[in-house]
Amino acid sequence: MAAFAITVGDPAGIGPEIVIKAVARCRDRLDDGSLRLLAIGCAEALDIAADTLGEPRLPRADDLDAVSGAAVIPIEPGGEVPQIGVVSAAAGRHAYLAIEKAVELALAGKIDGIVTAPLNKEALNLAGYAYAGHTDMLAHLTGVKGSVMMLAHGGFRVTHLTTHVALADVPKLLTPERLSHTIGLTLDALRRLGIEKPRVGVAALNPHAGEGGIFGRQDIDVTTPIVARYRDQGEDVSGPLPGDTVFVKLRGGRYDAVVAMYHDQGHIPVKLLGFHTNPETGAWEALNGVNVTLGLPIIRTSVDHGTAFDIAGTGIANADSLVEAIDYAVALAGSRHGAAAAV
Amino acid sequence: MAAFAITVGDPAGIGPEIVIKAVARCRDRLDDGSLRLLAIGCAEALDIAADTLGEPRLPRADDLDAVSGAAVIPIEPGGEVPQIGVVSAAAGRHAYLAIEKAVELALAGKIDGIVTAPLNKEALNLAGYAYAGHTDMLAHLTGVKGSVMMLAHGGFRVTHLTTHVALADVPKLLTPERLSHTIGLTLDALRRLGIEKPRVGVAALNPHAGEGGIFGRQDIDVTTPIVARYRDQGEDVSGPLPGDTVFVKLRGGRYDAVVAMYHDQGHIPVKLLGFHTNPETGAWEALNGVNVTLGLPIIRTSVDHGTAFDIAGTGIANADSLVEAIDYAVALAGSRHGAAAAV
Repeated sequence: MAAFAITVGDPAGIGPEIVIKAVARCRDRLDDGSLRLLAIGCAEALDIAADTLGEPRLPRADDLDAVSGAAVIPIEPGGEVPQIGVVSAAAGRHAYLAIEKAVELALAGKIDGIVTAPLNKEALNLAGYAYAGHTDMLAHLTGVKGSVMMLAHGGFRVTHLTTHVALADVPKLLTPERLSHTIGLTLDALRRLGIEKPRVGVAALNPHAGEGGIFGRQDIDVTTPIVARYRDQGEDVSGPLPGDTVFVKLRGGRYDAVVAMYHDQGHIPVKLLGFHTNPETGAWEALNGVNVTLGLPIIRTSVDHGTAFDIAGTGIANADSLVEAIDYAVALAGSRHGAAAAV
Repeated sequence: MAAFAITVGDPAGIGPEIVIKAVARCRDRLDDGSLRLLAIGCAEALDIAADTLGEPRLPRADDLDAVSGAAVIPIEPGGEVPQIGVVSAAAGRHAYLAIEKAVELALAGKIDGIVTAPLNKEALNLAGYAYAGHTDMLAHLTGVKGSVMMLAHGGFRVTHLTTHVALADVPKLLTPERLSHTIGLTLDALRRLGIEKPRVGVAALNPHAGEGGIFGRQDIDVTTPIVARYRDQGEDVSGPLPGDTVFVKLRGGRYDAVVAMYHDQGHIPVKLLGFHTNPETGAWEALNGVNVTLGLPIIRTSVDHGTAFDIAGTGIANADSLVEAIDYAVALAGSRHGAAAAV
């Protein structure tokens, strides 16, 4: 039976609420025994969210092996209780300790993967944890560098050669080693998702893939030979493909994933398809999409949005992304349980 | 009465067919006298397309002032007649001479603007015209440099600080002068489209707008002060705005246009919204979107797709983009005729 940790993230944000909502939406699978969910975080915040939403409170997971369905592993750092909607060291401490606990359980093989709700970087830093975010922490806690970010929404999957670097630094990061590593992790993730013969498109760095070298040569000099090497190995990898149309083809079903060269190239299409604002108020309405960290020794998926302190505690937060993140984690873990399922 | 040239582009591609289809779709406005369309290009190719489609052939425009409705100004370079679906010098010559004629008429004030169907760069070069495309030619023929590309689909409008340059060259092209020029042309175009108080968002160069300078400082050092200067002048300009969400907000109606920093940043969202492929065959189905050249002394709009030699002559080409390009040209010219209309 697959078991996953859901880290509650910053308890002052929408994390507790979307965790309770996601648990409710997984009720059938929790009840029939096909899924176990262990919320890790501030138990008080989860109880408040459950009460606000009129959902049952999660039972404490005193004996991990005895848990069926959903339960909470409380994080109890002591000190002040975090206040909803307020950035605080206490909240940052909860967020960090939940991740630490989840990684410990995952590395010990007690759970099949980690699904993370959003945290607040400022709170994390106030608590004395000097990380830029989840990815940094996970690299440190698992001892692995070189993880790759995949953003996904349904079958629209994009992995990234680079993410949080200045645009000026991107061209020199397009090296044969880095590209090969990214393509390899992409193929591996697609196979774990149950796709036997994955089709991967590699986006070009330069517009029009450099137009035969007129606007830059790296697509020709770096990407073309790496793609050829994968093809020689029998892999269905194509590229370099002009960035402005490759995502239209991805949506149309031509590829199972696209490797983007940099943050905005990959994030713009995923967010345009998954995010929506209310035309009247400008407020965010739908925030679909999953962030999957590839290359770690553990399965880790995450929501693709922030803590939304402004609406925390109101009961209106959207749990779609968290539910999709759970589904992705289940699918990625599928092969371990002999039940691979394509998302 | 507004009059526009439609250059037929490469006569071996889908240009003749989509011109005939677009004329048919503008029939009401042509008949009621509110619009005149002058197709400029290979008259034989237009006649073949009209016959294929069962539409009336366009009459020759012997006396320009006497034309009502639609007519053709034939380009007659002599020599071989271009063959459908074949790249040739003859076809490239037709394409070039049509643009030359259209610019001559526009600069002389005999027409209100130019709408261009696609041309083939290889054919153009075979004919001895060493241009990278329409934009180059128009710069040369009008003596103006520093034009700005706007891509638009309905109210989703994106202008570009840079276009056909290597990604590595983009950061150094983000200068105060160039950004100010691009924002200014964007505001001007929106006013011509009938938007009295235009709202412009400026996309950030770096992911997360550089995250306070951690991933690059240009958004802070260049974009912030230029945006402040426009705001001091009473303009509704915002930025730098993270690239991954600004286009979601543009689609949601928060801005009338976004200034993108580079080709793929602007092209990815416009094409994702306007282009569609057939999930069964992978073939392009919808190709919506208009390319508007800002900063020229003449109005110029264009389709946002290529010559599609593979389907030329079959009658299945989609004229949506050309019709939208005509509508944009009409709207941009509106103020001249006292009838500004927002597209």
